[in-house]
Amino acid sequence: MANNIVKSFSVIGGDLRQVHLAGLLASEGYNVYATGFDRDIEVSKDVIRLRSAEEAVHKSECVVLPLPYSIDGVTVNAPFARTPIPVDEVIGAAGKGTIVVGGKLGDALTEQAKSAGIKLVDYYKREELEVLNTIPTAEGAIQIAMEELPITIHGANCLVTGFGRVAKTLCDRLKALGANVTACARKYADLAWIKTLGYNAISIPALEHSVSNFDVVFNTIPCVVLTEKVLSKLKKDCLVVDLASKPGGVDFEIAGRIGIKTVWALSLPGKVAPLTAGAIIKDTILNIIAEEGLR
Amino acid sequence: MANNIVKSFSVIGGDLRQVHLAGLLASEGYNVYATGFDRDIEVSKDVIRLRSAEEAVHKSECVVLPLPYSIDGVTVNAPFARTPIPVDEVIGAAGKGTIVVGGKLGDALTEQAKSAGIKLVDYYKREELEVLNTIPTAEGAIQIAMEELPITIHGANCLVTGFGRVAKTLCDRLKALGANVTACARKYADLAWIKTLGYNAISIPALEHSVSNFDVVFNTIPCVVLTEKVLSKLKKDCLVVDLASKPGGVDFEIAGRIGIKTVWALSLPGKVAPLTAGAIIKDTILNIIAEEGLR
Amino acid sequence: MANNIVKSFSVIGGDLRQVHLAGLLASEGYNVYATGFDRDIEVSKDVIRLRSAEEAVHKSECVVLPLPYSIDGVTVNAPFARTPIPVDEVIGAAGKGTIVVGGKLGDALTEQAKSAGIKLVDYYKREELEVLNTIPTAEGAIQIAMEELPITIHGANCLVTGFGRVAKTLCDRLKALGANVTACARKYADLAWIKTLGYNAISIPALEHSVSNFDVVFNTIPCVVLTEKVLSKLKKDCLVVDLASKPGGVDFEIAGRIGIKTVWALSLPGKVAPLTAGAIIKDTILNIIAEEGLR
Amino acid sequence: MANNIVKSFSVIGGDLRQVHLAGLLASEGYNVYATGFDRDIEVSKDVIRLRSAEEAVHKSECVVLPLPYSIDGVTVNAPFARTPIPVDEVIGAAGKGTIVVGGKLGDALTEQAKSAGIKLVDYYKREELEVLNTIPTAEGAIQIAMEELPITIHGANCLVTGFGRVAKTLCDRLKALGANVTACARKYADLAWIKTLGYNAISIPALEHSVSNFDVVFNTIPCVVLTEKVLSKLKKDCLVVDLASKPGGVDFEIAGRIGIKTVWALSLPGKVAPLTAGAIIKDTILNIIAEEGLR
Repeated sequence: MANNIVKSFSVIGGDLRQVHLAGLLASEGYNVYATGFDRDIEVSKDVIRLRSAEEAVHKSECVVLPLPYSIDGVTVNAPFARTPIPVDEVIGAAGKGTIVVGGKLGDALTEQAKSAGIKLVDYYKREELEVLNTIPTAEGAIQIAMEELPITIHGANCLVTGFGRVAKTLCDRLKALGANVTACARKYADLAWIKTLGYNAISIPALEHSVSNFDVVFNTIPCVVLTEKVLSKLKKDCLVVDLASKPGGVDFEIAGRIGIKTVWALSLPGKVAPLTAGAIIKDTILNIIAEEGLR
Repeated sequence: MANNIVKSFSVIGGDLRQVHLAGLLASEGYNVYATGFDRDIEVSKDVIRLRSAEEAVHKSECVVLPLPYSIDGVTVNAPFARTPIPVDEVIGAAGKGTIVVGGKLGDALTEQAKSAGIKLVDYYKREELEVLNTIPTAEGAIQIAMEELPITIHGANCLVTGFGRVAKTLCDRLKALGANVTACARKYADLAWIKTLGYNAISIPALEHSVSNFDVVFNTIPCVVLTEKVLSKLKKDCLVVDLASKPGGVDFEIAGRIGIKTVWALSLPGKVAPLTAGAIIKDTILNIIAEEGLR
Repeated sequence: MANNIVKSFSVIGGDLRQVHLAGLLASEGYNVYATGFDRDIEVSKDVIRLRSAEEAVHKSECVVLPLPYSIDGVTVNAPFARTPIPVDEVIGAAGKGTIVVGGKLGDALTEQAKSAGIKLVDYYKREELEVLNTIPTAEGAIQIAMEELPITIHGANCLVTGFGRVAKTLCDRLKALGANVTACARKYADLAWIKTLGYNAISIPALEHSVSNFDVVFNTIPCVVLTEKVLSKLKKDCLVVDLASKPGGVDFEIAGRIGIKTVWALSLPGKVAPLTAGAIIKDTILNIIAEEGLR
Repeated sequence: MANNIVKSFSVIGGDLRQVHLAGLLASEGYNVYATGFDRDIEVSKDVIRLRSAEEAVHKSECVVLPLPYSIDGVTVNAPFARTPIPVDEVIGAAGKGTIVVGGKLGDALTEQAKSAGIKLVDYYKREELEVLNTIPTAEGAIQIAMEELPITIHGANCLVTGFGRVAKTLCDRLKALGANVTACARKYADLAWIKTLGYNAISIPALEHSVSNFDVVFNTIPCVVLTEKVLSKLKKDCLVVDLASKPGGVDFEIAGRIGIKTVWALSLPGKVAPLTAGAIIKDTILNIIAEEGLR
């Protein structure tokens, strides 16, 4: 179907986040068809479960793929499915004008969708999803620090490197718990925000001279800022939580050699709060549909 | 020794909290003798480790027993000791006028100390320790909720029953993380504080009519307020964290039958943040000594 | 009337707070009769205005006097009234069993009411009113500091002396605005709360050695803690806001001689937020009635 | 002088902000020459006051003009000067390579400086100054609301229109004081930030249907969003504080006709917190000098 207000969704594969978003879409009055949730998973009664991905896609104006949409590029990422769901089957079943949304869609799929006349949108690239995902990411980082540290967050000397989205939310929560929060950034405007929001500010070049007193360092910069020079100045029992995507911000080899405990925490939203993460994806999909004028 | 400014402490047994407080006292310039830390435990180099409890006690003006001081009433609670340390040996070695501090000291020990001319003080009964312990308790409770819930604390509907010390700190931290916090109390003055501090207030009699929307309930009242009537009104996936000492505030049998997940979390400070808990005990001991005019 | 559920109130005199509470009671469905609001004051249309205090009292089960109920002890405190309202007229008109509530009621009136069989309650003595009044008091104190200081509250070094009700709320708000907040108290338990809530703690005896860096001092202790010794250590441009009732906490003569700017701010709720203050009195009156079993 | 590390500043005219920044620069070890502060103004003893602007400029590597640098384009904005200081005199005295900084410098001056070989920088255009100025702006807005409203900020329903720099800081402070904060924006990413930071979010198109419950509206959008449609839906006693630069965000004529109280608050930093505003300008100037490699 096409060019109409979206009334039906098909949810094809995914983990608990997709299970939850299917239920949420149904609770908002949409017809929701789901496939790929065969194992012992509780799915909302309002979601219509189908064996065939093809049938589900046919019945819907918007097809929802998981995040990431596929691990191998061939089958849909569907950990709860008993039989694999080929990506081609989904794309092939989607009629011209259908909207297909998913996470971490690559160039190949984009090309394929284009030639099939399918509107393909990667919700993982949407800024509002990135912003809202900072909530579970920040909580996940704090949970790790609570689990690993023998001290409370209250009163702990915490350093957050970088002052992008994740850092902003993380600093807010750490301070709220009573930590002494220091954030470091390069740009004067970011340093100004750090002061305005009540944290201690240090510039990145000054990092190596200023880290000797921290109990925990949260890195959010996706390049190696925690170099040997910096790592060697940390307290021996300082914890490093790296939240940056590959290659990460820590020289892990050196950290290991020096004996600095390091946790590289990736993709926290789906792990620590799958229901919240599913709700965030759902909201983002509805925004996409609204922007296309189909809501 | 006696009637002098305290310059030396002996730390007899205990867990990581005592190990840490020994190191902290030493770093403040006191002579610290420790015994009962034989296993693979890192103790500050500034602490003088002795084999004999008797010797340690002899050398010090203040003797520090653990929390609780004993499990069996006969030997000191010393999980890291290779050989048992009889409580009698410690008390017997303490000269007249020595201060002995410990946690959860009973009537028998108090009597024994009195007749020996020993000044015995239970630091666990000190209000400042109770207040400061609300910090690790609140963080521990939040850590449990983070681990158990599939949603974030941000945006979660949280109920805290009671508005004593632990509840006050817990509400503060939950709200800081972005939760919708409701606290319930009986007294008008407590309800006024709840509003003043920015939480939703409900009176305890209204509890059973007001609980259907909560994602998590933290109980701090040491009598059964989460009765069958209340439990049966909770959402099926609501988490209950009971922070109240025995008998607790939850009808656990009913909760189990209804299928409400319940965590009874006791003695959190020593479990989730032993170093912070040790520092709190240390501060309290120094207050006791100052009050006795010996600091 | 008497011994019944209260359905009607008479509001006799007072300032904007009473005007507002009359309107609020009416909006909750009570019959409200008001007298003493003759001047150019906007009163809710749902309030029935009467010329005669006697008539108003007759028609109601609960009579509301202002805060304070009288300045001279003879007439009701009624700044908006064209003709004086004798207190005796009100008491005389109140039948046996009527509830009369008011603020700062003295012994004489209490005696008079008792012998007339009238239930007299001073709402100004209620703890919940004291607690809720800390909200406008704290905001009023901050407003004064904002008006007087050439710097922002954010980043200002603020000292709050005492850690009672007003201090607790004031510290919370100052910290929220980004101030460096220090509170001072005498008791270890209060100092523990100060740390737990994230403020710097100093003990009162240490005050004179620790005040040289403050930009503003808010006193809440009703005895002279800001002595010559302390005042002389303050920065010359430090502002002192005294929130304590008489005799206040500042040696005003010395402060004047040294040149320390001092503002003695009393009765802030009615001045800075009369509508909020009226709502607080209204809530307190309804609590009183509920406790009497008449609601 | 030129091409050297800046060691000397001349501060030419301005208000209390410039007086304060002169003192701060001197306290950091710079030689500071000031002119234009003839009236009864307290200037730091470490600042060298000169009669002649020409002499001051000659002695310094960096010349500091006020914000705005001039009202009439001819003389320096110097409210405390007894005799006018021509802008041409200052520019004429500045040697090649001198840095001249000031606020709201126009095209004409820029052209003039360029042909004279002077490095001219407008500190008012620097992002870090804009960010830090949100601190006094937000406090000034709150002070106005405190002064104008008969209710407390705590519990007040506050709307902030727009979610740029000023709005972000203002929302943070209002929520901290206990207000119910709603922010409105157009972009999904901004709405996501609004939720992440714990405020209620409404989209700008929905504004006219959602404003009936607010006690105060703070506008930060510099185009008319508070149209007749929106203004007519406000409560009659709602206060509107417009923080947007010209033309402002309020249809003031309609507001006046309807009877909505409006305060148009411009240039708050210099008015409510001149010392803080001076410190912010000082920090920004030092950043400029560092970026030029002259610090």
